[in-house]
Amino acid sequence: MQPLRIGLLGIGTVGGGTVKLLQNNADEITRRLGRELIITRAASRNIERTREICGHNTLISDDIFDVVNAPDVDVVVELIGGTTVAKDAVVQSIKNGKHIVTANKKLLAEYGNEIFQQAAVHNVMVMYEAAVAGGIPIIKALREGLAANHIESIAGIINGTSNFILSEMRANGSTFTDALKQAQILGYAEADPTFDIEGHDAGHKLSIISALAFGTPINFSQCYLEGISHLESLDICYAEELGYRIKLLGITRKTPEGIELRVHPTLIPESRLLAKVEGVMNAVSVQADMIGQTLYYGAGAGAGPTASAVMADIIDVTRLQNAEASYRVPYLAFQSNSLQNISILPMDEITSSYYLRVSACDEPGVLGEIANILAAENISIEALIQKGIINKESAEIVILTHSTKERLIKQSIARIQALPRVLSPVTMIRMESLHPR
Amino acid sequence: MQPLRIGLLGIGTVGGGTVKLLQNNADEITRRLGRELIITRAASRNIERTREICGHNTLISDDIFDVVNAPDVDVVVELIGGTTVAKDAVVQSIKNGKHIVTANKKLLAEYGNEIFQQAAVHNVMVMYEAAVAGGIPIIKALREGLAANHIESIAGIINGTSNFILSEMRANGSTFTDALKQAQILGYAEADPTFDIEGHDAGHKLSIISALAFGTPINFSQCYLEGISHLESLDICYAEELGYRIKLLGITRKTPEGIELRVHPTLIPESRLLAKVEGVMNAVSVQADMIGQTLYYGAGAGAGPTASAVMADIIDVTRLQNAEASYRVPYLAFQSNSLQNISILPMDEITSSYYLRVSACDEPGVLGEIANILAAENISIEALIQKGIINKESAEIVILTHSTKERLIKQSIARIQALPRVLSPVTMIRMESLHPR
Repeated sequence: MQPLRIGLLGIGTVGGGTVKLLQNNADEITRRLGRELIITRAASRNIERTREICGHNTLISDDIFDVVNAPDVDVVVELIGGTTVAKDAVVQSIKNGKHIVTANKKLLAEYGNEIFQQAAVHNVMVMYEAAVAGGIPIIKALREGLAANHIESIAGIINGTSNFILSEMRANGSTFTDALKQAQILGYAEADPTFDIEGHDAGHKLSIISALAFGTPINFSQCYLEGISHLESLDICYAEELGYRIKLLGITRKTPEGIELRVHPTLIPESRLLAKVEGVMNAVSVQADMIGQTLYYGAGAGAGPTASAVMADIIDVTRLQNAEASYRVPYLAFQSNSLQNISILPMDEITSSYYLRVSACDEPGVLGEIANILAAENISIEALIQKGIINKESAEIVILTHSTKERLIKQSIARIQALPRVLSPVTMIRMESLHPR
Repeated sequence: MQPLRIGLLGIGTVGGGTVKLLQNNADEITRRLGRELIITRAASRNIERTREICGHNTLISDDIFDVVNAPDVDVVVELIGGTTVAKDAVVQSIKNGKHIVTANKKLLAEYGNEIFQQAAVHNVMVMYEAAVAGGIPIIKALREGLAANHIESIAGIINGTSNFILSEMRANGSTFTDALKQAQILGYAEADPTFDIEGHDAGHKLSIISALAFGTPINFSQCYLEGISHLESLDICYAEELGYRIKLLGITRKTPEGIELRVHPTLIPESRLLAKVEGVMNAVSVQADMIGQTLYYGAGAGAGPTASAVMADIIDVTRLQNAEASYRVPYLAFQSNSLQNISILPMDEITSSYYLRVSACDEPGVLGEIANILAAENISIEALIQKGIINKESAEIVILTHSTKERLIKQSIARIQALPRVLSPVTMIRMESLHPR
């Protein structure tokens, strides 16, 4: 068989890792694939470094279009990132009839629908295992392994930076600020960490796997994003005392009313496997009708795991390259003409349990007033503890509710905050049992 | 596209579940696959029941060869089990040019090499996701998702019955006998449970995934099998006090000297995800060079999860059916001509840590004698505690060692048992940190 000819765009951490992987593991890959993979061309701004990494059998350029338009490239591997140059390169490569492998979650979350449409016209594959949860083959599990199921819900720890920060806050009682600094020192957080800690990165990934799970177009613009920067150590401690851990989860669930699509800090029972996922590791839990609950755990980022996912996609491209397009795995797991425009539920309409922390005067009757407000909305209480008397006159009340509509909890919170003896804004964190509903 | 025509052999729990899955989820499957799947024929001893389950569009027979030799069958789904009729049916189907989907781990563990060879000659696929860990897409992960890695080791909880019994013993302090009875009452253990509790079932599965991981033929006959029926609650308690759980693990590891291939009860640190896998659930942890550690968790058995895996395989067959054989995923992940005959290490040559429990006279000097015996073999001690004074004159000593060759620990145990003040045979359980070595 002819070798598969790869054109590589971007030689940063992942690009360099991909070249290194191919150099180190060519033997094992060829033993599996029965065919050679060669990087015929590479483009990057730093020509010197690129030549050093790729060696002299690869044609190097600082113009990505020297790769995109080259006749001796079967697959373009886009590892530039972002949505400007990367988008142009991907779209032009597709028009040139080249298959695409990308690790670019932002590009797919924002322009995936358009890209897949173009790819269908030009009869090429677009593969993106590396875009979600790095080394965990979750895209393959959703597109292929669970293909016989109605998928019901997904909950995932899909941002390693945030999970590291939350792990540090719990293990060492650090504040958010100190844990973030630690993450930056260790290279787990960027100088500007907004993208990771405010949920954007998790939202990109969640939007992609939600579309795959339910057979809809990608809906990133409607994904609710709430990060971890406002979390207080106090709430992590209280949660732990109550048998819960706080994790930044991406949650998507199909309900009769629409799809829930939301990223936010979440209390989960400490007995759940997701609760045990520490540091920068990722894990995705999938609930489906036939298979029940499955969970996939691994490294979410890093040169090795991401390059491994990129290379698995390249291998898949070689397998299905000669298959009729209709036999290939569809871009978003479902045939394009079977995608359904199911609406994303506004946050007011989602269903969740809640953790509430209320600071109030330590006087008889306050608890009763709060309980009455919740009862009026039919919100039942799973646990209620009075905690941490701040001074002689005030106390903290922590409440775990059973599940209810978010609209109702918000109304209740407004009424609780309006009580004369409630001293500061109520802290609200969502809570999930992660049991099938 | 033409519908894919399925011939079903065996309408027991899994067979019935497969028919039901196709009836219930046909919509979702067709949305994904863009093609219909129909069961044209089914064979089972109970014709009445089969007709009731399959309906009138399927031709029913009590002769499996009516399916195996039928012209209107593209894929034969073997859900009979065992190695007699099932083997004949699979081999004849292959000769008839039909693709095979099977859940039969025993058949593959014992005759897989021969079956794959036949299949290659006749240019058909043999798929077996359902044979290992039911609903967990671990075969797909190993054959495709991790294809760019040198896989280093695998450790898995791959027998739900044993894991349920061990979970019961730990949670309720039950004896093995009582926990087994409980498993039988709940339908998790057979009337004759030997196959599950003595490690045969886990050994079948482990042999298959070991071959897939390292690119060797299947070596079930050389797999070390040790079950859980001799485990005492006492050791589960002591392990827990020391921060460990005991699980029946299938472990396979590639070393420069050969491959370790072994099923036995194993102490693992309670912080590991595998330690948290409770009840009948399964989980497989894979260590590979690029990706690091990944873990896959889900139901290991049951009609739904197994049928889900069977159907995923059927869907894969439709995708690669028209691809040239050389483009398909190889039977054992590696091209047949790249399989290597790497020898399986005898148990004396494996490397492990060990838990030892010694009953001895409670007199000064005994501990020293034991420590000296271990030191003489260069076995270092991680922890040593004196426990449970049985009466005034004897005590139990529990020792955790660092890793060493099994030969050396066996020699040491023989010498410890020969000490005049040691009162009964030493209990030895292997221990794994599950950290990369």
